[in-house]
Formats: sequence, structure tokens, C-alpha cells
Amino acid sequence: MRAYNFSAGPAMLPQAVLERAQNEMLEYQGSGMNVMEMSHRSSVYESILFGARDSLRRLMKIPDSYEVLFLQGGASLQFAMVPLNLMRTGKADYIVSGVFAKKAYEEASRLGDAAIAASSADRSYRYVPQPSPEALRPDASYLHMTTNNTIYGTSARSLLPPTNGLPLVADMSSNILGEVYDVSDFGLIYAGAQKNIGPAGLTIVIVRKDLIQAPVAKNLSPMLQYKVYAENDSMYNTPPTYAIYLAGLVFAHIEKLGGVAAMQKQNEAKAALLYAALDRNPFYTSFAEVNSRSIMNVTFTTPSRELDEKFCGEAAKEGLLNLKGHRATGGIRASIYNAMPSEGVTALIDYMDRFARRNG
Amino acid sequence: MRAYNFSAGPAMLPQAVLERAQNEMLEYQGSGMNVMEMSHRSSVYESILFGARDSLRRLMKIPDSYEVLFLQGGASLQFAMVPLNLMRTGKADYIVSGVFAKKAYEEASRLGDAAIAASSADRSYRYVPQPSPEALRPDASYLHMTTNNTIYGTSARSLLPPTNGLPLVADMSSNILGEVYDVSDFGLIYAGAQKNIGPAGLTIVIVRKDLIQAPVAKNLSPMLQYKVYAENDSMYNTPPTYAIYLAGLVFAHIEKLGGVAAMQKQNEAKAALLYAALDRNPFYTSFAEVNSRSIMNVTFTTPSRELDEKFCGEAAKEGLLNLKGHRATGGIRASIYNAMPSEGVTALIDYMDRFARRNG
Repeated sequence: MRAYNFSAGPAMLPQAVLERAQNEMLEYQGSGMNVMEMSHRSSVYESILFGARDSLRRLMKIPDSYEVLFLQGGASLQFAMVPLNLMRTGKADYIVSGVFAKKAYEEASRLGDAAIAASSADRSYRYVPQPSPEALRPDASYLHMTTNNTIYGTSARSLLPPTNGLPLVADMSSNILGEVYDVSDFGLIYAGAQKNIGPAGLTIVIVRKDLIQAPVAKNLSPMLQYKVYAENDSMYNTPPTYAIYLAGLVFAHIEKLGGVAAMQKQNEAKAALLYAALDRNPFYTSFAEVNSRSIMNVTFTTPSRELDEKFCGEAAKEGLLNLKGHRATGGIRASIYNAMPSEGVTALIDYMDRFARRNG
Repeated sequence: MRAYNFSAGPAMLPQAVLERAQNEMLEYQGSGMNVMEMSHRSSVYESILFGARDSLRRLMKIPDSYEVLFLQGGASLQFAMVPLNLMRTGKADYIVSGVFAKKAYEEASRLGDAAIAASSADRSYRYVPQPSPEALRPDASYLHMTTNNTIYGTSARSLLPPTNGLPLVADMSSNILGEVYDVSDFGLIYAGAQKNIGPAGLTIVIVRKDLIQAPVAKNLSPMLQYKVYAENDSMYNTPPTYAIYLAGLVFAHIEKLGGVAAMQKQNEAKAALLYAALDRNPFYTSFAEVNSRSIMNVTFTTPSRELDEKFCGEAAKEGLLNLKGHRATGGIRASIYNAMPSEGVTALIDYMDRFARRNG
């Protein structure tokens, strides 16, 4: 039986997508083989890759002035690739809204002069900091932000920071396709696939074409150059073919459901229910500050560590899985990405009410 | 209907593995989810990753003095990671036995003083060159080779080059697990998964522990350091979880069939049949020189380009797919990795005989 899986990532996938992949496991549409057995240079595979790319373009209304690239290595490799490709002035500014944002900053610090334009470390990353415009350096190559902080359950949602004209680079790993953004507000967007898109091992990069035209360091591997991926339709070498196929199935599924706006509406409704349940019961304490609440990851605690643990243990017995918070915060975290049905959220709320009554 | 797929990679997978993955697509062993939906930090997933690693250790009899790492980015990223991590003297020697070996050499040349110790470019890479011991520089950090040249269908098989004590680094992408090697002959072995192991997007690295202890350049991303993968059990960031699961299924399948020695015996028998068919019919010309023939990729031509094309086109109609040679060589290439059943080879030989009679 399939459980309600609240994992922060890798995370739930739509059941319809898994069923389709199951049906096509021995043979994809009369091709005589599974997608993962196909040459990436074959026309049947090219149509899968280009189909996925075009579907993502429609979903996010990506302007023609942007490239859509399929890479490997997760957001963590992007922490390095962004400065290696874009830090042309040797300077870049970072908003540090959590551990992953900090890792991105540290990686850039290894490669040049990275500065922290704003940080919420002062209150354990419970809120999303906004830089004052004066904190931004006019000669920085870009401003880096994280649109949703998975560990803390924080997000500034659609409120983007002031940029003073700097290209905005965003780690959108945990809310891409879950909320509507205007791509033209960004210079570059990157996202590991394993939360709202598909299997781990695929990374999406959406980048303004003009930002990747200038030459990069001569000793930079082609595998680390956005330009090389752009010039080779993401097939400079063998791409993660099966992960791209699955991502394409997810994209098509979301298109069928009404696109990203429809996803956002559903996600807002699920999150509103869950936050209401938190707020009406003093047994639970929200981790994220109210103004910075994410609609993707909902973080909270019970009155004690022991009860936090008991909460997760007993939940698992009811088929509500992976509710344990990240080791950086402790407590409880419910990740409710696109693929989490509202029934899962309702079941969690029902369980929360019962658990609080028994243990309050 | 499943075809005989002679693709050079991504390539055929064992049907039993695909059937198992199909059965576990909606739920893996009572876990409530598919493997790709699991947190990589969960105990159920850890047992999948460690199980795959231990199975590979048994299959290749990997000594404890070696690390087994799961990475992303394919062999192409290894072309950079090898010199970034191992070229400590600033010098490395390369055997250039084909286009991919040359790419590895070029990548090292960007990062230091790389030298060509031997090359078979003089005869279009139709053979595997061996360096004279004097061609090796005593202060090189390693000697790089390719154990099987996918494009040309060449291999020196078990004959390893002289190394003069240099650590031997091998790109084993297209014959790992297809032939027996003694891991202790190598300093480092790497392989993209998509030929004999599993889906594209997973790269295996087997490296002698002492080679990765010394510090690397301070500005090298953790994502590009072998040491970081070793210290974090390949989970510094989210690994390609589903690809590792599938690789583990392939490893278990090979263990059940008798291990790598059994695979090699089967592969030698398949290749012997195919080369015999080539050699007895003057209609076909072998591309690889006889002494350098691979048992993984069999390359040949008919009397003309037009007939080569006709050969591949008519073969496809009989369910013998992806026989077109690489664009670097033209002609025909039959890749007959572990998962290609001997029935596929027999069917190809039967077709070759008929095609030659009709067109000879």
C-alpha cells in the first residue's frame, strides 16, 4: 500500500506518473526497449528530451531569451557552477537564509569575493532576510537567493529582494513548479529534481542567454560550462536519460492538471489547512516565523524532544511517513509538495489533533 | 515486443532486472513508496546503496584498501576529476587509443602537463597502442588508459601497459563487469553506468585509498573531490538514488549468474561467433585490427556506405536495432554487452549471412 510520504526530498511522485513508467518499463511505445536502454542520440529519445524541455517552457512561460538545460550533480554542484560561470567581476552577493544558502555562499567564497548581503542566522533561519539596497555591491556579478528553504520551512513566496539591477540567481530546488514565478525576474534559476520534478540525479538550469556568452576560465572543464550544455542541447555527453523521461512525465501531468497556477492554488490550500491546525493548538509550536512561512515544508515542534520523536514514530504506524525534522532544526517537518494529495494533509491534521489530545 | 538492441550505450539491460523494477515501481518491499521517492538518509535506502556497493565489491573482488564511490556526470566529468584530484606532480601520461581517451588527455592538458605516452591515431585508432617503458615519465602522477574503446571496438583485453610504477588510471566504462580485471593492478578505475551497469547518470569510481588522502586545491568544490565522497559514503549530497538501486539489481543479477568470470565466458563465446561470421565472409571487413578486437563492441563495414546504411535499415525491420556505427568511424557496430543474449548474436549472424548473399 502506498503511504503518505512527507519526505523533504527525494519526495513523493504522482502515482499516475509511476503507473505510466511501470507500464512502459519493458517497452516504451513500440520502440522495443525501455527508455533507459535507448541511445541518447536516437530520434525517439531526442523527442523525449525535447518534449520534456518544451513542456517545462510552457509550464514556467520561459522566454526565448533563456536556455533550459538538463544537468547532473544536484543543487550542490550548482553552488560551484554558478560562480565558475557567472562571477565575472570576481564579486557576488548572497542572501543567507539557511544552511544550503550558506553552502552556496561558501562555495563562491572559495572562488572569489563573495559577500553576505543579508542573513537570518541571528534567529536560527526562522525567517527570510531581505537585503537593504545599500548592502548590494554595484560591481557584484549577481545576487544569489533561495526561494524556499527546505530545512526551515521558510519562503518569502513571491516577494523578491531588491537587486539594484544585479542579475538574480535563485536556488528554486524546493518550490519550482509549486508556485508561480516570473522567469524574467531572474538571471538564472536552478533546481535539483528530487522534490517537485522527478528522481534525484537530474538538475534543471534556466539561464538568460546573454549571461553565458562571455568566455570562462580556460581551464574550466566543458562539463562545468553552461555554454557547452546550451550548445549541445544538454547532450555534450550522455545525459541522465531516464530521469529526464520521468521529469517529462511529471511536467505533462502538471500541464494536464492546469499548470503551475493550479498547483500553487492546491498547495496554498493544503498549507493553509495545516497551518490553521498548528495555530489553533498550543500543543504545537511553529518553527518558521509567520511572515516567512513556506507552503512546501511545514516545520513545528511539540512540547519536548521526546514527544517529537513519539509523534513521528506513531505517525509512521498510520502510514504518515518521514515526518522527522532535519538534523539542523530537530522537531517535525511535513513536506507537502505538488504530489502530496490533500487527503494526506487531512490525515496528518487528524493525527495531529489526536496526538495532542493524548499527550497534551 | 523487446528487440535485440545493439546500442553502444545507453544499452540493453537484463530483462529480469527490468521486471523486478516494474514490480517494485509503486512500492518497494512494503516501504509504502518507490525507491526514487525515498529519503537517501532513510535506513531502507541506505541498505539499498550499501547493498549495491558490497555486491560490486564481491563481483570485482575489490580489496579493502580501495574506496567504491557513486558519482554523477559520466566518464566525461571523470576526465576532469582525475587530474583535479590525482595530478599532484602537475604531470600525467596518457595512452590515446580513441576519441574519448583523447578527450581525457585534453582535459588533463588544461590543468597541467599531460603527455601522450602512446597513440594509435596513426591508424585511425584501429588498434590499442602500448607505450614503451621509456616513454613514461618517472615524475608523472599516473598513467591513464581506456580498457575498451567503444567507438572502434578495440581492447587490449587483459594485457595491461607497462607502468614503471605509476598508478594506472583506467576508463573502464564499456567493459567493466564484462571481463575480469585484478583491481589491485589499478590506482583508479572509473566507469559510466550506461553500458554494463545501469542507467545513465551514475558513475562508479574505485580508487586506492592512499591516492586520495593528500589535500587538493583549496578552491576545488567538495562535489569534485573524491575524498568528500569517500568520507560521506557517496552521500555528501543526494546521490542518484534510483540509478544506484537499478545498478544494485544488475549486480545481484550478475552474482546469481556466476559473477564476472561467467560473464566474460559468455561474452567471449558471443564475440567469437560474431568474429567468425565476419572473417568467413569477405563481404564484411573488420574495422578493428585482429590483435586488438574487443569482445564488447564489434565494428565492421560492408563494401560501401550505401550498403552499410541498408544493412542497418533492414536489420531494424527484423528487430535488430541500433547497429549504426559511431559517426567517427561510420560503418556498423554491434555492441554485445552482458545483457545481450546469445540469441541476439545468433539472430544477427543469420541476418548478416542473408544480407551478404542478397547484396554480395
